[in-house]
Amino acid sequence: MKIAYKIAIAVFFAGSTSVSAHEIVNRTISENELLAAQQGWCEALVEISGTHTASGHAAAKALAERVIDEAYGYQMGAVLFKPTLTTTPQTFRTTPAGALSYFVGGDSTFPNDSGFALKGWTKCEAENAAFFIAGNSASTMGKVHFTDQDGNVTTVDKTWGFVKDDDGNLRIILHHSSLEYIEP
Amino acid sequence: MKIAYKIAIAVFFAGSTSVSAHEIVNRTISENELLAAQQGWCEALVEISGTHTASGHAAAKALAERVIDEAYGYQMGAVLFKPTLTTTPQTFRTTPAGALSYFVGGDSTFPNDSGFALKGWTKCEAENAAFFIAGNSASTMGKVHFTDQDGNVTTVDKTWGFVKDDDGNLRIILHHSSLEYIEP
Amino acid sequence: MKIAYKIAIAVFFAGSTSVSAHEIVNRTISENELLAAQQGWCEALVEISGTHTASGHAAAKALAERVIDEAYGYQMGAVLFKPTLTTTPQTFRTTPAGALSYFVGGDSTFPNDSGFALKGWTKCEAENAAFFIAGNSASTMGKVHFTDQDGNVTTVDKTWGFVKDDDGNLRIILHHSSLEYIEP
Amino acid sequence: MKIAYKIAIAVFFAGSTSVSAHEIVNRTISENELLAAQQGWCEALVEISGTHTASGHAAAKALAERVIDEAYGYQMGAVLFKPTLTTTPQTFRTTPAGALSYFVGGDSTFPNDSGFALKGWTKCEAENAAFFIAGNSASTMGKVHFTDQDGNVTTVDKTWGFVKDDDGNLRIILHHSSLEYIEP
Repeated sequence: MKIAYKIAIAVFFAGSTSVSAHEIVNRTISENELLAAQQGWCEALVEISGTHTASGHAAAKALAERVIDEAYGYQMGAVLFKPTLTTTPQTFRTTPAGALSYFVGGDSTFPNDSGFALKGWTKCEAENAAFFIAGNSASTMGKVHFTDQDGNVTTVDKTWGFVKDDDGNLRIILHHSSLEYIEP
Repeated sequence: MKIAYKIAIAVFFAGSTSVSAHEIVNRTISENELLAAQQGWCEALVEISGTHTASGHAAAKALAERVIDEAYGYQMGAVLFKPTLTTTPQTFRTTPAGALSYFVGGDSTFPNDSGFALKGWTKCEAENAAFFIAGNSASTMGKVHFTDQDGNVTTVDKTWGFVKDDDGNLRIILHHSSLEYIEP
Repeated sequence: MKIAYKIAIAVFFAGSTSVSAHEIVNRTISENELLAAQQGWCEALVEISGTHTASGHAAAKALAERVIDEAYGYQMGAVLFKPTLTTTPQTFRTTPAGALSYFVGGDSTFPNDSGFALKGWTKCEAENAAFFIAGNSASTMGKVHFTDQDGNVTTVDKTWGFVKDDDGNLRIILHHSSLEYIEP
Repeated sequence: MKIAYKIAIAVFFAGSTSVSAHEIVNRTISENELLAAQQGWCEALVEISGTHTASGHAAAKALAERVIDEAYGYQMGAVLFKPTLTTTPQTFRTTPAGALSYFVGGDSTFPNDSGFALKGWTKCEAENAAFFIAGNSASTMGKVHFTDQDGNVTTVDKTWGFVKDDDGNLRIILHHSSLEYIEP
């Protein structure tokens, strides 16, 4: 790719007495940015768990608020968020309050939430099946493996959708997570 | 909307001696197109079920092939497809063969597939939580309710991602479906 | 279209005991927004001219700075801006300083700029040929007619490219303007 | 960039017993594709000129038809095309017939067209100022230098807008070309 590119440039300006570099604004999402965003989500989850253990609920909640604010796209409106363990009629968490409750619980509006990020996760890994990069938005699908303090691993099927915001950061605008189906 | 639009035009060309209409190429996806695409998917599923009952497996399979070819985006490469009932290590159906097997079964490569579209569905309804329209691509999230011949209703949490192709048709490039989580 | 839409909705929710409206995030650009953005550009140009006449160069320059900051996309990096009257080697104004100098002059870095917005424009009208709406970005092409204080009309061929920013505002990221070609 | 990427991957799958490569569908436009598309346009122009000289008008016209069909986006509807030398009221060539007449003339509907591609061009070079890559669409702006059989060089200011079609090819959906402005 790099080599082909240099050849293209070389052919293109062959015979030119001067080569003027052009400026580029690129708002597309790259594979590398998607991997980094997934890793960032995983690291944040483990960090919230660790903060909860070390510093208590209030600290974990404050961190979770910051993560939701920075990593999700609630600034644009509803986020299409179906967390792993939510139940009807509160399955979808299209508001930041709903997302926060899912991660750290403690909100009487969402009485069934026990706080997914408080389960003592020590490791989180994405194992991707496929990416679709549409341009300024992109999606990933695959497994995510969560390891708890006792070494038990929970695996979910997870889809993330991202857009790149004006500052060049990816934001999650879609998140569908579900436990693996087990045949009865 | 229409009224506001006409006012804008009127203000805009006020004083013009002639108003020349301009041509518009619009590659964006509308809410209406998303609703129609969901309805189309539901109708196709019910039709495959009906064809199976009335005309047998071969006819249902032929119809399913046509539906996958027309409604999904496998022409572009991998589709991010996590069907409701698939299991590891064949959870994700990024190829048309994997999608076909999920819908109508009968493929020894996917031995656990019994054919989701063959379960005698008579009704299929989407109940949406939120849409995100990024431009030429868009996503929807919500419940989908399937009714079988005995009137039993199965509900899943479903995310669809679409792109508009060069012919102006929506194609599914992402599809994550999961049974509702039930607290143990 | 409207009728088809209503039918779709009606069919869609037939039999539902409750109709839950879904939330929509829509980042696409509409025709109406493009017309409004063009009109906004025209009004800003006339306002800068009027400010110059009424309040002098410093006031006009301050207004122009604000207009460039709000209407163009220099926050994202280079803007593809080829103003009507610029000459080699300063044809392209990819920086906000270059745009400002074009509109109000007075910058020794751009010695040939006399200030296009200072020419006493009293009217500015877009007459569009065609729009291309790609999604979150869109382009327009057509004539723009400028009328000065003496009633003389100058017409240019003008292309604008826009993106919708995170706040939902259109920003000019491409602007190519040229005097009409006159056969020798 | 490449190094950072490998580190990310390494960190990401550290501890995994197996690394599964994921599939990627990427519909974005790259800088390299933009350079290749510009070069393709230039080569096609020179080839039409050469065909005209060697084989006459009919052959040049047939080639131009093919080039327009393959390189422009008239399949999607109107192309925003303002050629260098067109005049009112036929400035904009939003149809393939208008584009063809501009390149090879001979169409009584466009009586002022003498055929820009028939002017004996032997060389065509793009000198870019800036690119804006929005995602599945992108724009370029800069100078293009045309050299004729006698070695005379004509320079224009040129903006191209592209979209990537379903087959992965770039298509011109916007093209604004203008002679350099010369101060009176």
